[in-house]
Amino acid sequence: MDQRTPDPPLYETLAAQIETLIESGVLRVGMRAPSVRAFAAQHGGSLTTALQAYRLLEDRGALEARPKSGFYVTPRTHQDRALPAPSQPPQRATQVSISNPVFSVLAYASDPSYAPLGCTIPSTSLLAAERLDRHLARCARVHGRNYNIYADPHGDAELRGQISARALRLGHAVPPDGILITNGCTEALNIALSVTTRPGDTVAIESPTYFGLLQVLEARGLRALELPTDPASGVDVTALDKALGARRVAACLLASSFNNPLGTRTSDARKAEITRVLTRHGVPLIEDDIYGDISFGADRPRPFAAISPKADIILCSSFSKTIAPGYRIGWLAANRRHDQILAAKFALSLSGAALPQKAMADFLTSGGYDAHLRRIRQAFADNVDRMRRTVDRSFPKATRMTDPKGGFALWLELPRGFDADALYVRAIRERICFVPGSLFTASGGYRNCLRLSCSTEWSARIERSVERLGEMAEEMLG
Amino acid sequence: MDQRTPDPPLYETLAAQIETLIESGVLRVGMRAPSVRAFAAQHGGSLTTALQAYRLLEDRGALEARPKSGFYVTPRTHQDRALPAPSQPPQRATQVSISNPVFSVLAYASDPSYAPLGCTIPSTSLLAAERLDRHLARCARVHGRNYNIYADPHGDAELRGQISARALRLGHAVPPDGILITNGCTEALNIALSVTTRPGDTVAIESPTYFGLLQVLEARGLRALELPTDPASGVDVTALDKALGARRVAACLLASSFNNPLGTRTSDARKAEITRVLTRHGVPLIEDDIYGDISFGADRPRPFAAISPKADIILCSSFSKTIAPGYRIGWLAANRRHDQILAAKFALSLSGAALPQKAMADFLTSGGYDAHLRRIRQAFADNVDRMRRTVDRSFPKATRMTDPKGGFALWLELPRGFDADALYVRAIRERICFVPGSLFTASGGYRNCLRLSCSTEWSARIERSVERLGEMAEEMLG
Repeated sequence: MDQRTPDPPLYETLAAQIETLIESGVLRVGMRAPSVRAFAAQHGGSLTTALQAYRLLEDRGALEARPKSGFYVTPRTHQDRALPAPSQPPQRATQVSISNPVFSVLAYASDPSYAPLGCTIPSTSLLAAERLDRHLARCARVHGRNYNIYADPHGDAELRGQISARALRLGHAVPPDGILITNGCTEALNIALSVTTRPGDTVAIESPTYFGLLQVLEARGLRALELPTDPASGVDVTALDKALGARRVAACLLASSFNNPLGTRTSDARKAEITRVLTRHGVPLIEDDIYGDISFGADRPRPFAAISPKADIILCSSFSKTIAPGYRIGWLAANRRHDQILAAKFALSLSGAALPQKAMADFLTSGGYDAHLRRIRQAFADNVDRMRRTVDRSFPKATRMTDPKGGFALWLELPRGFDADALYVRAIRERICFVPGSLFTASGGYRNCLRLSCSTEWSARIERSVERLGEMAEEMLG
Repeated sequence: MDQRTPDPPLYETLAAQIETLIESGVLRVGMRAPSVRAFAAQHGGSLTTALQAYRLLEDRGALEARPKSGFYVTPRTHQDRALPAPSQPPQRATQVSISNPVFSVLAYASDPSYAPLGCTIPSTSLLAAERLDRHLARCARVHGRNYNIYADPHGDAELRGQISARALRLGHAVPPDGILITNGCTEALNIALSVTTRPGDTVAIESPTYFGLLQVLEARGLRALELPTDPASGVDVTALDKALGARRVAACLLASSFNNPLGTRTSDARKAEITRVLTRHGVPLIEDDIYGDISFGADRPRPFAAISPKADIILCSSFSKTIAPGYRIGWLAANRRHDQILAAKFALSLSGAALPQKAMADFLTSGGYDAHLRRIRQAFADNVDRMRRTVDRSFPKATRMTDPKGGFALWLELPRGFDADALYVRAIRERICFVPGSLFTASGGYRNCLRLSCSTEWSARIERSVERLGEMAEEMLG
């Protein structure tokens, strides 16, 4: 073999080997790389050489060192892709009317014959909830007779205890009696809104925001005031302050973390500022923490309620994104209005199904939920990373995209004038579903934006669909 | 032995034996008495003598002959107890404010250390839903993976098919696509109200009416217009017509059959008249058929929707009173407004839990639900009969009571001036719970009335509690 080209240094060869493992998907985002010692032993290098290889990958942004733990695969940074611009929605309260277009999209989004870039429902195989199902089977066999009652409208006491204990680990001190089990996060949001607003009132929300939330506002006859929102840092505090000064706002409804569709991680300091502003204006905060547990970082962000324990905050969440969309178990946690909240639950649905709650309580008590969360966080981080890389190489150069810090939504912003609704029509013809940006606002914007869901295992079909969307977008722009 | 008193005729001796069997509870209301042939053979009489005995009991109202089937034990008639007077609520729409007193009663009603005359929740042992629970256990084991999704917001297709088929047997033709599965009947009522009313609107209801319904109206900001209602025949049609002519009423909400607390069976002819009046005034009917399957008669009454198939009717019901209060599976069936109904469900709770619906579908498909219904109908009829007999011998002579044709509520009316709220306070001290009449109206009446629940197996404790209530009422009157 011709040896004129000098060999690269050994540490570069070793680094290239790790990169190949990452590229091929053996090592995925969030996974720990082999220990330096083990890697050195396997590849016949010294400890120093192996460490040099890891440091090189750290410099390249492929790995990150975590103290006393090792090196982890990081999401790729795509420096040539700018983030979408901070939003600038019209500063007026808008009557919400979104349900009809949403239903037409949802019909495709839930149809498995369409490429699944539409719905943000984790796929069943990815969630792998068999252990929870076994708890349900056991509960039905063992407890059926005792649980065939209208449960306490507050929900199963043991389940509330488990949720309370998990909240405390985040610094959110809420006793089991401050927690109410609901039929998913959607019912929790309805209850929170019912005790803070009346029809015709205005609710301040992020922009863009999850269309399901807009549907809730629409059904309750509430007006939406959309707030300028930065994909990297969250709601603009100055704009919020100004907006609340300008008109009566009955409640503010924000994602705690990783808002759908932006995936923003708002800093603790910014969260504290937001609650200070809300408190000053006497506006209660309803926070939706449904994506909080799906953090791609080393830690899980704290909800507003943990950061500002005395503020008027109702936290809503559920197990639907992390383990059991089919169980419909959500909850809300509040530090006031308990009687009104109970009356609202009672009037809406009396109480929740008893056995699924008991099964969820048993599942949490038996341990393993944290290991499960680690597994799915890594899976979603990997999905988002692959989606971003595919978008990066397939979409027009001017396309901006978010850099989600959690959850499983990716938001693209194409040049002004691009028509994502038209792309949607073309994509549906080719059996590809996504959600056009126009559904994420009540005030008619984001026509040049779209959301891609990364909630299903990565596959050749998904990859090809994203590439095809990129080609179509290119054609439409060209 | 002295034989101067002549022996009674043999048929009277035989009749007395049957009466003893009924008194002792061996033969219970709704059960078939031994066949005339078998009874004659057992007691050494002729067929004619045995038949004479049965005819005598028929004359006395203890048995009823059903063609080609035999003789059945009938509920006792208590001819010395008049029915409560038809109600005469004030003819104005009332702001509803009932939640606080209701919650204080419910806390006692669900506490097993109190005699269970408060809550109308069938006891778990009486429902004996083990077979359904086994279906759930099997579903969780076998289908868990496939069903861990947000279900179709309409609900499980097979379950809707089963409900549709059962409706058809009553002459109510509603396709599976006209049915929406809900979190119990309460959510169904919320959805029905959300697509027919707006806050501030007036809803016409029976009087007295179920307090849970009043709580739903209160939570939705609706006003109640209470209609004069006869315990024997139902809503006064002339009064209804007049009330609808006098003001705008957004919807009328009536029980299909066996309204809580009166247990009325409204005739088909009266139901047809009611829907004619509503149609003439352009007022939609929301009917609550939750007790319809618990009929004490030989047949099960038809809902309004079966009698007036073209009228604007939304039927709400659930499995909570007949098999599974713990499963929280209700439904609504409508012949119009399907898109609005789906949007309302979506905004309220997205979809229902998947596995319990699948289990209920499997349970219904596997057969045996009708046999189950026959068993519980008889059990509840027997409970109500025992309750009535105990009230009859324990309560003040002037006490009137309903003669329920189904369900498991008994409504007592004491002389004007009697204070059932005061009786309630005394009863709670003695660990007896019932619901005072004042909770069954939004307009402040029925202070001299009370509801006793017959949803739990008859027991010495229940019997003694009813006797004690009667003693206390006697003291309070005397």
